[in-house]
Formats: sequence, C-alpha cells, structure tokens
Amino acid sequence: MRHLSQAHALRLLAGASLGRVVFTRQALPAIRPVNHLVEDGEIVIRTHDGAALTTATQQAGAGGVVVAYEADQIDPDTHTGWSVVVTGYARLVTDPADAARYARLLRPWVDRSMDYTVRIHPEQVTGFELIEGQPDTRA
Amino acid sequence: MRHLSQAHALRLLAGASLGRVVFTRQALPAIRPVNHLVEDGEIVIRTHDGAALTTATQQAGAGGVVVAYEADQIDPDTHTGWSVVVTGYARLVTDPADAARYARLLRPWVDRSMDYTVRIHPEQVTGFELIEGQPDTRA
Repeated sequence: MRHLSQAHALRLLAGASLGRVVFTRQALPAIRPVNHLVEDGEIVIRTHDGAALTTATQQAGAGGVVVAYEADQIDPDTHTGWSVVVTGYARLVTDPADAARYARLLRPWVDRSMDYTVRIHPEQVTGFELIEGQPDTRA
Repeated sequence: MRHLSQAHALRLLAGASLGRVVFTRQALPAIRPVNHLVEDGEIVIRTHDGAALTTATQQAGAGGVVVAYEADQIDPDTHTGWSVVVTGYARLVTDPADAARYARLLRPWVDRSMDYTVRIHPEQVTGFELIEGQPDTRA
C-alpha cells in the first residue's frame, strides 16, 4: 500500500467516470453512486429535485455542506488498484450558463431528469495505491 | 433504474468482495474501501488499531455506531449494473472464537495487520439495478 500525492490522486479521479458521494442525512451517514467530471480541480456531479443531497446543499447555501467523494478501481482478484477520497465543500451551481454547460458535459446514467448540479471543492485529498506484494504465506 | 428487494440486494452484496464503509469522524463524513464477507445477513469487515472506525466502535461499545456500507458493480461503458446501500449498527467483534474465525475467512488486502473485526447489522437495505433503456437521443 502506497500513498499517492494529491495531484496524482486527482488525476486518477479525473480519469474515472463513477464515484460515490458521501454526506450526512438527518445525522446519519449516506452514500450514493454517481458519475462525475473533474474540472479545474473541482468535482462536478448532477442531482435531482428532492434528492437528500440537493436539499442539503440548498439549505447550506453559499457556505456549502461538507461531503466526501470517493472513487476506486481495485481488482478483486489481484487486490491491486487505487482509491481516492476527497473531502470538501459541496455547493449548488447557481450560475445558469455553468449549469447548462455541465448538463451538456455530464449526462446522468439513470433515466430521470437531473435538474441540479453540485460542485465539490476539495479541502483534503487522500489516495493510495495497492501494489503487488509478497504472497500472504499465512493463507 | 429498478429497485431491488432487500433479499436480492443482500445476495448481490454477499457475491461481491469489496465495498465501502461510511461513517462519521469528528462530525465529518468518512469513507474507506474494504473487503467484506456476509454471514447470517450481517456484514463483516476487518480494521486495525488506530483506525477511525476502530475508535468509533470502541467508544460506542455494545450499542454500536451507525454506519453505511455500499457496494456496486456498474459498467462505465454500458451504464448497467447495480448498487446496494446498507445502513445499520457497527459493533466490534469481542468474542475471541468469532474473531479468530473471521481472521481466517477474511484476509485483508493491504499488508498491515488487521487486529479488529467489525460486524454491521443492517437496519435498512436499499438497492437498485441499472438496466439498459432507451438510447439518450438528446446526446
């Protein structure tokens, strides 16, 4: 297990299309898989009316709400790969031109309308790589 | 997008070997990828001394601490697959015989000793399947 630099971790995240957004919903941990894009070091995802994350970001306003965003690519057979976790502030994209551009760039994978766009500004980026090591002789 | 029954969702989770445990750490959302096994409808993962999740379960004691556990298998090209999210109570496994058995059954994928075992009792299980739909003609 090898730790990654922040720049390397963000590059891996940008190269993946799917991740999981983690937030607090009524004081409980919540997680949803979503597709994303990375632009200018920020993570952009889309969400819909009534979604818990939409509500949380609406209530938080310009200050944003703290979320985590995770992506990984770990081979279940070789146990090699990587994982990246970003913690930062999620805010609704309110600029109509930005929102329209993201709607073009980022198509939701589910067949429902995603009328909101959320941008996550990373405060902390951690990542690790699992590389092949000694075979586990205890097995 | 089709919702899955609880039984179906738990079967998919049991068939996967990797997931992500989501918890609250110093009031912030935290997430870690881990390998798991499912036994008697409960999710078993291993953790190490000093890990935030170990500390959280130690502090919570027999009452347990609320966590979410997520696994998914979504094809980034076809956008088909599934995702399962379990919310429930995580408790340290304190019975030495149980702990020894899980240590045999569940080998960590990282080269560090994992001296603790955590069992998650699901209170809520949700899952969905992404199936192929109409091509998105807006693209």
